Amino acid sequence: MANQESYAGKINRKLNKKLRIIAVAAGREKADLVLKNADYVNVFSGEICHADIAVAEGLIVGMGQYSGTVEYDMTGKLVLPGFVDAHIHLESSLVSPKEFARAVLPHGTTTVITDPHEIANVMGTDGIEYMLQATEDLPVDVRFMLPSCVPATPLDEAGANLDYRAIDSFYDHPRVQGLAEMMNFVGAVNGDAQVVEKIVAAQAHHKKIDGHAPGLSGNALNAYMAAGVYSDHECSDLEDALAKLRMGQFIMIREGTAAHNLEALVSLLQPQYIERCMFCTDDKHPSDLLEKGHIDYIVKKAIRLGADPIMAIKAACHNAARYFLLNNRGAISPGYLGDFVVIDNFEDFNIELVFKKGRLMYDGEVKEFDAPQVDDYLSARAHDTFHVDTLTAADFADRRMRGVIGMVPGEIVSEDAGYADHIDVSADILKIAVIERHKNTRHIGIGYIKGYGLKRGAVATSISHDSHNIIVVGASEADMAAAVNRVVENRGGIVVVEEGTVLGEVALPIAGIMSDDRLENVNEALENAKAQAFTLGVSEGIDPFMTLSFMALPVIPTLRITTRGVIDVITQQYI
Amino acid sequence: MANQESYAGKINRKLNKKLRIIAVAAGREKADLVLKNADYVNVFSGEICHADIAVAEGLIVGMGQYSGTVEYDMTGKLVLPGFVDAHIHLESSLVSPKEFARAVLPHGTTTVITDPHEIANVMGTDGIEYMLQATEDLPVDVRFMLPSCVPATPLDEAGANLDYRAIDSFYDHPRVQGLAEMMNFVGAVNGDAQVVEKIVAAQAHHKKIDGHAPGLSGNALNAYMAAGVYSDHECSDLEDALAKLRMGQFIMIREGTAAHNLEALVSLLQPQYIERCMFCTDDKHPSDLLEKGHIDYIVKKAIRLGADPIMAIKAACHNAARYFLLNNRGAISPGYLGDFVVIDNFEDFNIELVFKKGRLMYDGEVKEFDAPQVDDYLSARAHDTFHVDTLTAADFADRRMRGVIGMVPGEIVSEDAGYADHIDVSADILKIAVIERHKNTRHIGIGYIKGYGLKRGAVATSISHDSHNIIVVGASEADMAAAVNRVVENRGGIVVVEEGTVLGEVALPIAGIMSDDRLENVNEALENAKAQAFTLGVSEGIDPFMTLSFMALPVIPTLRITTRGVIDVITQQYI
Repeated sequence: MANQESYAGKINRKLNKKLRIIAVAAGREKADLVLKNADYVNVFSGEICHADIAVAEGLIVGMGQYSGTVEYDMTGKLVLPGFVDAHIHLESSLVSPKEFARAVLPHGTTTVITDPHEIANVMGTDGIEYMLQATEDLPVDVRFMLPSCVPATPLDEAGANLDYRAIDSFYDHPRVQGLAEMMNFVGAVNGDAQVVEKIVAAQAHHKKIDGHAPGLSGNALNAYMAAGVYSDHECSDLEDALAKLRMGQFIMIREGTAAHNLEALVSLLQPQYIERCMFCTDDKHPSDLLEKGHIDYIVKKAIRLGADPIMAIKAACHNAARYFLLNNRGAISPGYLGDFVVIDNFEDFNIELVFKKGRLMYDGEVKEFDAPQVDDYLSARAHDTFHVDTLTAADFADRRMRGVIGMVPGEIVSEDAGYADHIDVSADILKIAVIERHKNTRHIGIGYIKGYGLKRGAVATSISHDSHNIIVVGASEADMAAAVNRVVENRGGIVVVEEGTVLGEVALPIAGIMSDDRLENVNEALENAKAQAFTLGVSEGIDPFMTLSFMALPVIPTLRITTRGVIDVITQQYI
Repeated sequence: MANQESYAGKINRKLNKKLRIIAVAAGREKADLVLKNADYVNVFSGEICHADIAVAEGLIVGMGQYSGTVEYDMTGKLVLPGFVDAHIHLESSLVSPKEFARAVLPHGTTTVITDPHEIANVMGTDGIEYMLQATEDLPVDVRFMLPSCVPATPLDEAGANLDYRAIDSFYDHPRVQGLAEMMNFVGAVNGDAQVVEKIVAAQAHHKKIDGHAPGLSGNALNAYMAAGVYSDHECSDLEDALAKLRMGQFIMIREGTAAHNLEALVSLLQPQYIERCMFCTDDKHPSDLLEKGHIDYIVKKAIRLGADPIMAIKAACHNAARYFLLNNRGAISPGYLGDFVVIDNFEDFNIELVFKKGRLMYDGEVKEFDAPQVDDYLSARAHDTFHVDTLTAADFADRRMRGVIGMVPGEIVSEDAGYADHIDVSADILKIAVIERHKNTRHIGIGYIKGYGLKRGAVATSISHDSHNIIVVGASEADMAAAVNRVVENRGGIVVVEEGTVLGEVALPIAGIMSDDRLENVNEALENAKAQAFTLGVSEGIDPFMTLSFMALPVIPTLRITTRGVIDVITQQYI
């Protein structure tokens, strides 16, 4: 109890910090940092303004004439507020949150709103707790929306089943902003009590609820919104986006690794609609992060597509901050966080400096920062999520007639390609299986897949949406077993095997979906594994792992494979 | 404990209501109310849209095709969201909150943000509590900002002295939005700890802090904002407003009884600035409410001045709601409150119907509604705020040399008009006094005033900013005593006396500043008293009571009268 701060003590502590800030703002004391002679984007008036920007105690204290302990001359540069990603699953980067932060800082990202949906499907509330701890005090502020759909469907065998009471106490966490994308929009619209009570509980905590409802319109959209859902990041055409915006939803324009919606929606970046628009990525895979960037990539692309740069900047910072009630960021204004992106100009858009809370975090290289401390038991638990006995070819030897999932190049939807009862490489009929890995149930769902192209060996991955069991495709049942065993040995990841030999692999020991390694190393291993998969015959135009990772998600038509076999998503019947 | 609702019980109750709303929105059940064939203002897209608007459980559930238990055909009409006054002191209407609601409903007001600064100066926290109780469940939603400056200055002898701890528990009240106008901007900028800790405490509760800083600019404005103040309603010229808007303040464009700033600021109502602008009145006196209206008057005037009608509507509802985080109102959108204003068209702007939470409250006449229940002890306390012994002419017989306050026609500032030691009606030198009335201290400050014009009798009022002691001006000391005694007898109000006879009076027995009577009656009594004051000689161009009510406010230059004598506001010295 000795270190429990009283209310009076807390007010006094904050008062003293505030008095310093006021003294610096008023010019009575020197600032910690001053960006001298700065042209900066004013998101309030939609102009470029010019002033010295002073920072103290990590906060902007004023724009005017200031001197500081540290000063940077901004002549010829342009200062922007730090960028905000309104919706991402951090796990999609395949690296730890610290490593993610290191990857996005050079791109000007200073706040992200993450939905730890993937890890929650593996570790339940411990997964949420792990991510909260692993993001504490990072130089990218990581805010959370609580996963709303774990498991994604009742057909999934996930690592957890989270009802409204399971996540309730997290709403008191200072970095939790609300309830993440309510993917079960059908349940919401139909008045499924277990779905709606999650929304009701979030509202009882005065929190935001994000939406996910591609193409929903008319009275169904009314019902979804009346339930309490005021954002959408699934719009891929302008008509859908405008219908939702008119109805009162905020539009998160998504441009990530899997979905590219900016081009279709860029015309929203105009005065009539801008207030309701922000940017998000949803997912960012390693190569995409390394090669394209993050929110800066979206801003650059928007400008290239003809958007007014200041509108694009507003969508990249201010509007997301306001939507999430993060009213101390997303603008250059007294009292706001000292989060800055310094670029050369809008045309070239080279990011030269990035500051987080007044601290220089990037100037051509990312500054060192500490990894957050995670409780030992949580760290141990995160690294021990596979409960699967060693498998042999016999476990995959099944010879019954099973459905054949027909892959569609460039899409994640699939076709019903009939039945098969054995592997036939010459006809491109491969065996596919999903191995339940959370609770050692020995559930192994077996089916066939056409279009993947593998000629020999097997490919296995524990990134398998949304329940992250192990999915494996093989031209040989022995190699399927070898690949899965190696995934388990690595405590998760991606493995490419031929004749029992591992040709390529990415170890993802954090919950089976994230690496402890550096992003560059993960990317290199991933690219190598991918090349090996192609060597084994995987068809051109197919991402050997990402495509596979959606084959066990029984909400995408037509056929999917689960731990209980092949299911027709349309009829919801196993075939 | 039996009626204490469990968390599960609360969620279940909200769930059942929500399921009904969803069912109506989806079209599975009939709506409670449908506005059929409505053209309505869409504040999200800045358009006029067309649909049936359905309401259930007091909330809008959808815009589309709906049928309802009650239906109104909106053909040829225009439906707007209910209006929001972003800043008002309800007490300025001189009537009870219930009566205020009855007065503004015909003008389309469905939410007001009040600062109970006046009653708090009389009754302290009991005054805040009184107003909270007296506004519970009114058909105009009354939200509160907690008074930040009671007393207004250390020179005031108010009924209370409220530090941050005194008001702290009110932040938990569901209708308290934050800390009201921080008038002591000098204290904030100078780092006065007692001022800044009020701001810090409001922030610790995640609440808004309103500003009040006419003309503040440069580093002082930076300091004021860095302290935590993000709105201003004191802008009277465009340059001041733009400077504050650029810095990051929200601008409350004020058009009330005392201040008329719309004309100067109307050009803010354009796409570049609109997101940061809203409307407020600050004060609305009875005749102004009855003759001009409320927020509707501002909208009409803005349109007449050339503003885009949809921009004006956004400022009149949506923008204030967003600023105050009242995210369930200020737009026509599923899940939002069923608060509607139905007008004929933008040009004539006749309000035909007003709905609050889906309930018809005005259709040419205001519908009956109950007065909120106020605790007996609070009601008794509110009606017993005068603690002054009976006075006689001897109490005002002072013959020392005293400062003469020189009135300036049409202004509330005053001049230093020298000294006097007796009443001299022929030279327009009248005696003025302030009688402390909260604690029976017998403090009576005496001075002289020039320019008021009274030839005989006396005028007294207990509306005397901000501490609401009794202020009296007289051509006769006996009439001064008689007028004050009558104010006390009436438990507050305004009295005009000649030769001991009451010629006109307004009884204001609620804290000495509000009436229990109907607005129309109060206005009639007030207009009569005013006429009587003019009969006694009060100069043309002077409001006999309002002008007087500012003469004891020792923050307005040059000379003022307090309970301790005449003070020079510039030098802060008694003269």
